[in-house]
Formats: sequence, C-alpha cells, structure tokens
Amino acid sequence: MAPVLKSHKIGVLTPKRCIDLNCDVGESYGAYTIGNDDVLLKLASSVNIACGFHGGDAAVMRRTVELAVANNVAIGAHPGLPDLAGFGRRVMQVSAQEVYDMTLYQIAALEGFVLVAGGVMKHVKPHGALYNMLAPNETLSRGFVRAVADFDKSLTVVGLAGSIFLKTALDAGLKVAHEAFADRSYQADGSLTPRTNKGAIVSSAGEAAVQAVRIAVEKRVFSMSGAELSINAQTICLHGDSPHSAKYARAVVRSLKAAGVEIRALV
Amino acid sequence: MAPVLKSHKIGVLTPKRCIDLNCDVGESYGAYTIGNDDVLLKLASSVNIACGFHGGDAAVMRRTVELAVANNVAIGAHPGLPDLAGFGRRVMQVSAQEVYDMTLYQIAALEGFVLVAGGVMKHVKPHGALYNMLAPNETLSRGFVRAVADFDKSLTVVGLAGSIFLKTALDAGLKVAHEAFADRSYQADGSLTPRTNKGAIVSSAGEAAVQAVRIAVEKRVFSMSGAELSINAQTICLHGDSPHSAKYARAVVRSLKAAGVEIRALV
Amino acid sequence: MAPVLKSHKIGVLTPKRCIDLNCDVGESYGAYTIGNDDVLLKLASSVNIACGFHGGDAAVMRRTVELAVANNVAIGAHPGLPDLAGFGRRVMQVSAQEVYDMTLYQIAALEGFVLVAGGVMKHVKPHGALYNMLAPNETLSRGFVRAVADFDKSLTVVGLAGSIFLKTALDAGLKVAHEAFADRSYQADGSLTPRTNKGAIVSSAGEAAVQAVRIAVEKRVFSMSGAELSINAQTICLHGDSPHSAKYARAVVRSLKAAGVEIRALV
Amino acid sequence: MAPVLKSHKIGVLTPKRCIDLNCDVGESYGAYTIGNDDVLLKLASSVNIACGFHGGDAAVMRRTVELAVANNVAIGAHPGLPDLAGFGRRVMQVSAQEVYDMTLYQIAALEGFVLVAGGVMKHVKPHGALYNMLAPNETLSRGFVRAVADFDKSLTVVGLAGSIFLKTALDAGLKVAHEAFADRSYQADGSLTPRTNKGAIVSSAGEAAVQAVRIAVEKRVFSMSGAELSINAQTICLHGDSPHSAKYARAVVRSLKAAGVEIRALV
Repeated sequence: MAPVLKSHKIGVLTPKRCIDLNCDVGESYGAYTIGNDDVLLKLASSVNIACGFHGGDAAVMRRTVELAVANNVAIGAHPGLPDLAGFGRRVMQVSAQEVYDMTLYQIAALEGFVLVAGGVMKHVKPHGALYNMLAPNETLSRGFVRAVADFDKSLTVVGLAGSIFLKTALDAGLKVAHEAFADRSYQADGSLTPRTNKGAIVSSAGEAAVQAVRIAVEKRVFSMSGAELSINAQTICLHGDSPHSAKYARAVVRSLKAAGVEIRALV
Repeated sequence: MAPVLKSHKIGVLTPKRCIDLNCDVGESYGAYTIGNDDVLLKLASSVNIACGFHGGDAAVMRRTVELAVANNVAIGAHPGLPDLAGFGRRVMQVSAQEVYDMTLYQIAALEGFVLVAGGVMKHVKPHGALYNMLAPNETLSRGFVRAVADFDKSLTVVGLAGSIFLKTALDAGLKVAHEAFADRSYQADGSLTPRTNKGAIVSSAGEAAVQAVRIAVEKRVFSMSGAELSINAQTICLHGDSPHSAKYARAVVRSLKAAGVEIRALV
Repeated sequence: MAPVLKSHKIGVLTPKRCIDLNCDVGESYGAYTIGNDDVLLKLASSVNIACGFHGGDAAVMRRTVELAVANNVAIGAHPGLPDLAGFGRRVMQVSAQEVYDMTLYQIAALEGFVLVAGGVMKHVKPHGALYNMLAPNETLSRGFVRAVADFDKSLTVVGLAGSIFLKTALDAGLKVAHEAFADRSYQADGSLTPRTNKGAIVSSAGEAAVQAVRIAVEKRVFSMSGAELSINAQTICLHGDSPHSAKYARAVVRSLKAAGVEIRALV
Repeated sequence: MAPVLKSHKIGVLTPKRCIDLNCDVGESYGAYTIGNDDVLLKLASSVNIACGFHGGDAAVMRRTVELAVANNVAIGAHPGLPDLAGFGRRVMQVSAQEVYDMTLYQIAALEGFVLVAGGVMKHVKPHGALYNMLAPNETLSRGFVRAVADFDKSLTVVGLAGSIFLKTALDAGLKVAHEAFADRSYQADGSLTPRTNKGAIVSSAGEAAVQAVRIAVEKRVFSMSGAELSINAQTICLHGDSPHSAKYARAVVRSLKAAGVEIRALV
C-alpha cells in the first residue's frame, strides 16, 4: 500500500463515512425565479447547473457559477432536453447523435462561465427526462458519455445508482458517481417512481432525512412496496425547485451530520 | 522602420497583397436549410459559425465545424441576438451585461465542437443586428469585448472597418480585423445601407467582385451617393444566406486572384 | 327600470365615480410560476391575459381564462413581443406588419380559450416593451390597431392615457380606455419612468393607493419631479409579477372604496 | 335542380370517383424557407397550414392563408408538437391535457388569420410525431378531439385511415376523413414506415402516382413486404417539405386525372 494512502488510515478505528450532497441549481430563466439556490448553495457539497435548454439562461448561468465558486462547492453541468415549456421533464424521442450534440453544446457553454469565474467543472449529470431515458438505455448513454469524454476525460459522470448509464460511462474510461435520492421514492426495480405518480416525492423533510441516512450509512433504501433495495451511492440528490427544498435540505444535512456522515464533494 | 518588419520585405519588389475572405456559415436549423455552406467553405479563408441563438443548432454546429476543419479554413464564432424568428436581424434593447452573457455562452458552446473536431477557434464576429448595434456603441462593445477577452485573449475580433467596436477591442488588448463588404452597399458615413433600404445588397456578382478588388487593392469603396470612402480592411465578408451567395463568392475570388490578391486567413 | 337598480341611484346628486382596475395575469410558464393571480383575480375588475409570447403557455392560458370566468372579471388579451427570456420587456425593432401579425396571432389564440370557457373577450392591451413602443409611434400603432379591428371591432383598446396609440385606435373606430398606473412613477412628459431607472416603481403600497385615488377622483398625478399632470383615465393598472403585487392591489382597492370610487369593468 | 348541375349527372352509370388531395404548407419560419407552397397550392384541393409550434410563424401563417384563399383550396389547421428544432417529428411524452391545450391554442391562432382573410377553416390534421402518436392512442386522441369539438363542431378531423384516432373523433360526433399517403410506404399493420427507416419515402414520383391511383380507384395499397392492404381514404396526402415535392405532386395529379378521378376538397 502506498504510504500516502496508508497515512490516511493510521489510527482510524472506524473509517469516517462521507457522502456528497448534490443539488440542481441555476434553473431560473429571465424574469422567472425557481428554486432556493441561495440556501442550497450553502448546504450542498456539489451543484448541478442548468445550461439553458430546460432552464437557466446565460445570465443565470453566470451568476450561479459565481455563487458556486464563492461558496466553494463542486461545480457540475446539468444538461437537459431542449424543452423549456416542459422543464426538460417530458421524454423526447432523440437519437444518440442528438444526445451527443445537445450534451456537448451545453457542457461547453457552461464551461465558458466556469472558466471565467476561476472555477473548475468537476462532473456532469443529465437532467430530468434525459436522466431517466439514459439510465436503462445503452445506445443513448453512449451518445452522452462520448460527449463528456470527448470534451474532458477528467469529468465524473453522475447518474442513477446501478444504471446501465453509469456502466457505459465506466466502460468509456470515465469516473462515475452512483446517485441516490433522499426526496424521491423508489420502485421495486430500483427506478424512481415517476413524478406523475402518487408518492413520487417523499412526503416530509423528516422522511427524506431518514432516507438519506439509510442510504449513506446502511447503503440501502426501501421501495414504495416496502422491499429493501441495496444501494451503493457516492452522492445524494436533493432537488432545488420545490417550494420545500430548503427545508428538506436542512433536515438531510442535520441528520447526516448527527449520524456521523461527513458531507464532502466527490473527488 | 523596425527591423522585424523590414526583414519581411527584403527582396520583395512588389509586396504580395493578401486579404482574408470570410463567410457566415452554419446558419441552418433543424429541418431548415439556409445558405450554400458546401461551396462557401471551399472558397473562403475564414468562416463565422452560428452558435444557436439566431441560427444553427448543436447538430449543425458540429457538422459545420467538421467541414471547416476538413476544408482547412480558419474558424470563428458568430454569436447573435436570441431571435431565431428574426434571424438575429432585429435590433433588441439589451444591456452590456446581456451582451457579455450571450456572447460568452455562444463562444463557449462553439468552442466545445471546435475542440472535439481538433480545430482551433481563431476569431469572433458578431452577427446581424448585434454587429450593427456594437459598431458605434462603446458601452455595448465593452460587454462583447470583455466576453471575448475573458474567454480567450488570443482571439481576433472581426467588425466593421473603422468602428468604435474595433477600437474598443484594440483598447482591451485584443487583435482586431477590419471588415469590408463586397456584397453590401455603403452610405456616406461609412456605415452599411440597412437591409430594409433599397440598394442595400450589391446588385450583381460582377459588381461585388469589382467592389472586392477595390477594397483589397485600392483600399477604398464608393458610397451609394458616389462618394469615395477610404477603407483599410484585412477581411472581406461574403454573406452565405442569399440564393446567389455562391455565384457572388466565385466572382469575388476569381477577380481577386486576377488582380494578384492572395486570399489568406487572418494571422 | 327594475326597483333594485333604481334604488342604487335614489338620492345621488353627484353621479358615483367609478374606475376599472386591471391586472396582468397568466404570465406563468411551464414549471415557472410568476405573479399572484389568485389574489389579483379577486380584486381586479379586468384582467389582461398573456398569450404565450412573453409569458403564459397554452395550459396557463386555459387555467387563467377559467379563473377569470369563475371570478366574473372582464377578460382581455395581453399580447407581447416574442421574447420569453426578456419577458417582453426588451424593445425590439419590428415593423408595423410584424406587430400586426404577432398581435393577431396572440389575440386569436387566447380567443380559443375564452370561447371554450364560455367567456367573452372585452379588451386588448399590449404588454411591456410593446406597450411603450406603441404609445408614441403612429406607424407601429396602426399595425396593432388594424389587427384588433380586423379580428373584432367590438374590442376596447387599452393603452397609455393620452397616447398617440389610443388616438390611432380611436381614429380606426375602436373603443379605447385610457390607462393610468398606481404603482409606476411618471415623468414630466406623462410617460412612465423606465423600469431600469431608479424610482420607476412606486415605493410602497400606501403611496400606490394614494396615487390611485388621485387618478380616479382628482384626475391628476404627480411626476417624479413634482409637477402635476392632468390625466383622464378609465382604468388603473396594477402589475401582477412583483412579489408585493397582492399587497399593493389590496391597498389600492381599499383606498378607492374608502374614497367612494366604485371598481367596475369597462363597458 | 339547376340544369348546369343536372347535366353533370345525366347518363352517369358509375358515379364519378373523386378524392381530396391535401398538402402540408406554411412550414417556413422567419428567414428559413421550406417546401414548395406556390406549386402545391395550385395542385392540392386542401392544405394543412402549420400554426407556429413545429413550423410556421405569424407572418408565414398570414401569407399562407391569403394564398390558400386566393387559390380557392380548402383550409385546415396543422397543429404540431412544440419542437421547432425537431420540426415536430420527435415523439414527446405529453398528456391528453397537454395535447388539448396545444391543439386548441394552435387552431385558434390560425383561425384568426383565416377569419381576417375571409376564408373558412374546414379541417384539422395533426402534424408529424403528433399524428403518429394519436393514431393508435385513444387517451391522447380524446385530448385532441375534444379541443377540435370544443372549438368548432363543424370541423372535419383528418387522420390515418382506419386509426383509433379517427374512431375517437367519430365517437365525439365530428366528421372525419381517412387519409392515405401517396409518397410514404406502408407496413404490414397499416402504419406508415417510420421516417428513420429505409424505404419510408416512396422512391420516385412515378411510384407515388401509381400508389395514389391505387388508393383512389382500387382502394388498396401494398405494404413494403408486398402484402395488400385494403384502405378506404377520402383524402391523399402529399408532403410539401421535400425538395421533390412539387414533382411528386404533379405526377400524382396527372395520374389521378388520367384515371378519371376528380380532385375535390372534402365536404
């Protein structure tokens, strides 16, 4: 074992648990404000910044990147489908090439603002319907992954824990982070309950906090039917666009800390 | 005379005249095709590629950049106003900060495709109404110039010959290229005749060719009223979206070559 | 005459003052919520409903029209410039024909929802930058007015009190309503202080209420410099998209009623 | 009965065959021109006019309606998905309510221009992906059909021959027209070969003409695999956006006339 690694462990009886807490931010658009970015940027260790297709405009991107740098949180791109009216949450039938093109465009556009703000882009996470479309679909995933790899091989790809999407990214030589959700309910097959279904959103901040600790410490989550799912996540997502997102985020942070879990950005 | 300049001239009896020929390309959008990119990419020494706001989408940008690299022409970004329906040709009342944001976003987005295609972005030229708004306006020009300088100080700014816009770019330490038009008519004050006016477009390919040679060799141009304007341009623009653009471009290239002018990208 | 109506008038020496109170509503878009429509629809006698260009989407339009019908307020169309990112507040250089086309399109689209909801469209009021562009400009005004007249000659045109815009509408045989603002400050020439200037928005709900009463009862308003402007308005606007719009609206309604002014839709 | 009409029928043993020929027109957008509307408006008996979502803008809609009136062809609305970049050809996951809202908005917007031009809207036909999504889907079809019926019960709904979509429209009390395609190939189940598949477009104008006659006279069509499909169509579609559309349309018209089929708008 390399000395530098060894030194980390010396004297550690129970190695400290840590997890990344990521939030979607920068989704406002023109006169339209959405989310609780101010609060979330103080609680999260990583943020996913919208790139203008499903939300976010150039001014919002610039200001959000500046805030992320000022708050010292890890910056990621959050590319979505070209559907502002649907907030990127309506599945669209796109080809792998279209996914490649829209992903590369959005990552690169955000990188402009990150560069100017003196920050560093660390990860990329697909948004909304694109996230769900990619999870089980290797063909589409290859389009996305190729765009990330072509642009910057050092970027980490964030996606649904255990998904084909992340396997595809790994196979392409990219770093990946398996993501779990504190505020979304799971189905028996490990997928998220669709937003259009009842019970898609975990019903209270307290429950979200319990689910976050279960994910970080016990590495499991319960599906809506009560089945236990094993999950190995390096990052937990808290959504930013609900009116209660700040309350949920605070409860999750408090509970994770109480459980001895350190909130720390992905490396 | 500085030795470094003198050495360029040693033994040169008649120094070879050269000029850059730039074309706007990549302005198609989805199912909509516009321009004669295939022809123009073979004739021009530089191309200005639309970045998705007034024209161009991510797929068009990718393909256009690939064609530019394959044709070995210098690549530039061609940011425009966010007005697809108006093709970026309708003046919009925007602030210098809005100009900064939209310019940085578009340059950076294109850079993603240039990077992946193994090309190098060389210059930036504002499109349509933005071009005309910037020319005489120092405040707005500062927004644009700051975006270019923040993103990449080595980029050349292309704009209306003799404009406040180019002066602002120079003052910011950027390289500039003064641009003249072979296919547009001039007014007595050196500005372009607005497209909505009669006679805005030079009426034949032959006349455009004559005007190009006059610009490159005689460094002058005639206004619509017949007044002679002195002009010192390093690049001549040929528009790409008219049905006759290919014919005009061919005539200009032929005449410039016949006049002993070398068509060469900006350095 | 029905006794119940007669009783209203008995003993009235000075005829009861009345004024219309209009609000901009239906400006939300997709996942983006803006304004306080629920409150405003209960306070206003007329509403101007966004038509999808500067704000509002088809779903928002349908729901807003249904709410307007349910609240028994007069319905008007609120067409704007095609600039969602700028919320229709950035001046765009458009021709009279373009104004005609965008106005007719938007009025007609809204009419579909009004028809289906069993309501009646009563008036049309331009939004944001379009409102300000039309006020002093007869050429552009003719484009707008012609669209309204061609679509439905019985519609009332609402615009800046005393403007060339309203004169153009009158000349075209349309009914007009002169509009004054309770929550915006005036300049010495009777125009509104631009939103980008300090003091554009009246600084408190109390002041807005005072200004409303002054307009309705005294038929005058003070400019920012203190000069008294005479104004003859049939309708007062309260904006809906500020966070304080509900508070302002309540204060205005309370004060108008206290001053004996009846709030009543235009006829 | 008027003699001139009577003479049409005298001695007719087999009643004259007739069919409607419909074309998609008005799909240009801003500076972008698509289709061969000038030619098609002279050949077709009915046109489907884009309404601004997948193509067409307000100016294009106005001009196209005026041309349709001038050419005396029956006018229909051609609402599509809100996806200009994808020309309305990418399936989007929308709810029946979203289909209702987008359909009503688009029909009503077009109606404004039809009204002003002194025309009459006769039919509604969904565009592109929306057409294909509705064909087999009763839930979505109900959203579309309800929008048409709520707006104007006298409109004819045009859709895929034999589809659940048309059955849903019939059940709602609307008139329907079963549509067949001269320039698209069929699959064994009667659906159109998807555009992304090889052989989706009939490969020559001559073949399209043969297919048109087969549909109009023999009431059948062959699938790609050679199977004979029986089809009872009242209208044949010729697409307008391919470079060869004018050639195809001319060949179809010539062959139909030669076969004694009268081209006549739906009643």
